[in-house]
Amino acid sequence: MLPFIRSDLAQFTAYKPHPSSDNAEAVETKFDRLDTNESPDDLPPELKEKLAWTYQQVIETNRYPDGGHETLKQAIAQYVNESAALSSSPITSGNISVGNGSDELIRSLLIATCLGGEGSILVANPTFSMYAILAKTLGIPVVEVGRNDSNFEIDLPAAQSAIAQTQIPPIRVVFVVHPNSPTANCLTAAEVAWLRSLSTDILVVIDEAYFEFSQNSLVGELAQHPNWVILRTFSKAFRLAALRVGYCVAHPDAIAILEKVRLPYNLPSFSIAAALLALQNRQLLLNSIAQTLTERDQLIAALKQYPNLQVTASDANFIYLRVTSNDSNSQVTVLKSIHQQLRNSGTLVRLLNGGLRITIGSKAENARTLNRLQAAVANLHF
Amino acid sequence: MLPFIRSDLAQFTAYKPHPSSDNAEAVETKFDRLDTNESPDDLPPELKEKLAWTYQQVIETNRYPDGGHETLKQAIAQYVNESAALSSSPITSGNISVGNGSDELIRSLLIATCLGGEGSILVANPTFSMYAILAKTLGIPVVEVGRNDSNFEIDLPAAQSAIAQTQIPPIRVVFVVHPNSPTANCLTAAEVAWLRSLSTDILVVIDEAYFEFSQNSLVGELAQHPNWVILRTFSKAFRLAALRVGYCVAHPDAIAILEKVRLPYNLPSFSIAAALLALQNRQLLLNSIAQTLTERDQLIAALKQYPNLQVTASDANFIYLRVTSNDSNSQVTVLKSIHQQLRNSGTLVRLLNGGLRITIGSKAENARTLNRLQAAVANLHF
Repeated sequence: MLPFIRSDLAQFTAYKPHPSSDNAEAVETKFDRLDTNESPDDLPPELKEKLAWTYQQVIETNRYPDGGHETLKQAIAQYVNESAALSSSPITSGNISVGNGSDELIRSLLIATCLGGEGSILVANPTFSMYAILAKTLGIPVVEVGRNDSNFEIDLPAAQSAIAQTQIPPIRVVFVVHPNSPTANCLTAAEVAWLRSLSTDILVVIDEAYFEFSQNSLVGELAQHPNWVILRTFSKAFRLAALRVGYCVAHPDAIAILEKVRLPYNLPSFSIAAALLALQNRQLLLNSIAQTLTERDQLIAALKQYPNLQVTASDANFIYLRVTSNDSNSQVTVLKSIHQQLRNSGTLVRLLNGGLRITIGSKAENARTLNRLQAAVANLHF
Repeated sequence: MLPFIRSDLAQFTAYKPHPSSDNAEAVETKFDRLDTNESPDDLPPELKEKLAWTYQQVIETNRYPDGGHETLKQAIAQYVNESAALSSSPITSGNISVGNGSDELIRSLLIATCLGGEGSILVANPTFSMYAILAKTLGIPVVEVGRNDSNFEIDLPAAQSAIAQTQIPPIRVVFVVHPNSPTANCLTAAEVAWLRSLSTDILVVIDEAYFEFSQNSLVGELAQHPNWVILRTFSKAFRLAALRVGYCVAHPDAIAILEKVRLPYNLPSFSIAAALLALQNRQLLLNSIAQTLTERDQLIAALKQYPNLQVTASDANFIYLRVTSNDSNSQVTVLKSIHQQLRNSGTLVRLLNGGLRITIGSKAENARTLNRLQAAVANLHF
């Protein structure tokens, strides 16, 4: 071990990029990639052409990008207002900060609040793993509570008690996803009521990465809660995962701090141009969501035929599948077996927290995957 | 102030993106932008076309980027070996980590070493301001020493003494730039000898952002020094500032930690493709360096005619200009006046640490800027 490295990092396990990302294998062998909740569709050719043209004619590759993002922030603010039907106290560019994916914003929020022993964070598992991973890289303690096993609601008494009992350092940030990943459920009324009840000393991060699929947002309550921030992304419904653009909607004072903490030129010019283009063409891009939701509901209906599969309602572009079995050991074995058989037959999905998270892909991908799942289940003894 | 924000961040001043970056004013009013040490040349049209084609035909906008970077790292390793004529113990992809500009790598190095009260950093001013700025956002103490006023060599006795005397927390990282910005000088033999003498408990970061202009690298000594890391960038000689790609060359153990700490999808697919294309065409791109160096030397020669201007040798694509005057107050006044007159007449330069940093631009930009400088100096009373 190198002596100048923090000792607590040695044990640390990093986020593992999905299997297809380290090599071209997945693309070349034509896997159905239903493991990262991406859109199944690239931008339409005419938009790719427009973006390529913008690169060639407008972007100076040799010049640093716009470090202020004002134009992009204004376009985002307009979309946020429209998406939440905010007419009375609309969001402005002063409520927006953009990042190299939501990941950078999550890291900046952690840096701004919890470093130096000033705070711990609270997460309710299963949930998006990056909150805890990024906190641990920064040496920030992570307090974990569970969820109700049937509807995946946060164990609110446990969460409340964790906040009351965690003192050194106190819980400074609560992370929730709305709808949650991998369990696909929106926040319940009880969860939202609990978030409203939290002390304003606690930052509440509401990650709405899948908002475009749920159409259920808390952005309308931001004005009443200066301690809430909402994360959104261009990586899912807007189809820009390759270009890494996320954004945060929050009180201008919180935004001012994020702007101080972020890297000054965090977004490449091409990514800025792509996000602007996606917003300008949002109607075209978001049109495909209806089909995704129809496909999702058909897949859920088909899987409900199997008494040993547990599939819950979804508010997102993915489903979460568990198996029923007499003992938990064999549940894990069954899940691993299904995961492996899917992979062997051509579909990548994610095995997470005792369940399979399956992204809704194209019509053909979903049909193939359902067939493969049915074959896998037929082979199993539950 | 929001109560969940770290109290030490309130006083903190962020890095200020150069004036042209927040709006299109600089581009529209046709300033000569000699303020950020960019290349004056965009990629040649045939390479922009190739990159646009790659985006349209190969990159799936809706898919997350390659999070492993193996192909890019191999290409970088090959270039590093070639650039340092390393044949005996060559660099491999295991010695490379890539970042969203060097900025992200600097932040990751700080996170990996100094957080949690484990370390302070040492910088020698004037130098690149981001080391101290990023350290401060992370609550890491910054120890500053000076430089020799004539050749800008680090005050080595002061640096040595700072290391001996700084205990809580001890100095864990030393940052040097080779050649330094804004002063344009390479490390001297005495400075390199001092770096070699440092304890292996101290990480030595050697930022070679301007290596392609100096052709003076310490990469050949990395094998002997597991506590050294070298930073490089595609933003200067490779003309990719808009796309944000930097890299680090280091011992595989240090690289493994950087890979753990970095954001899993830190580089957009388009940036990865651009860096690969730039490396494949490096001969073409680096060909223009000779002209930059000729232009630089002519500008220095012309400015040496003015007894009140102090211009020192440069190993980079910029020069550092000071003025002589009887008292330091009036020096500052004179510099501010020149800076403003240059701006008024159409050239952006950077006023930093009692000097003007002027990027070498195109032949025409340099000629105009020399005329404007001469006019400004003629108007002044020193």
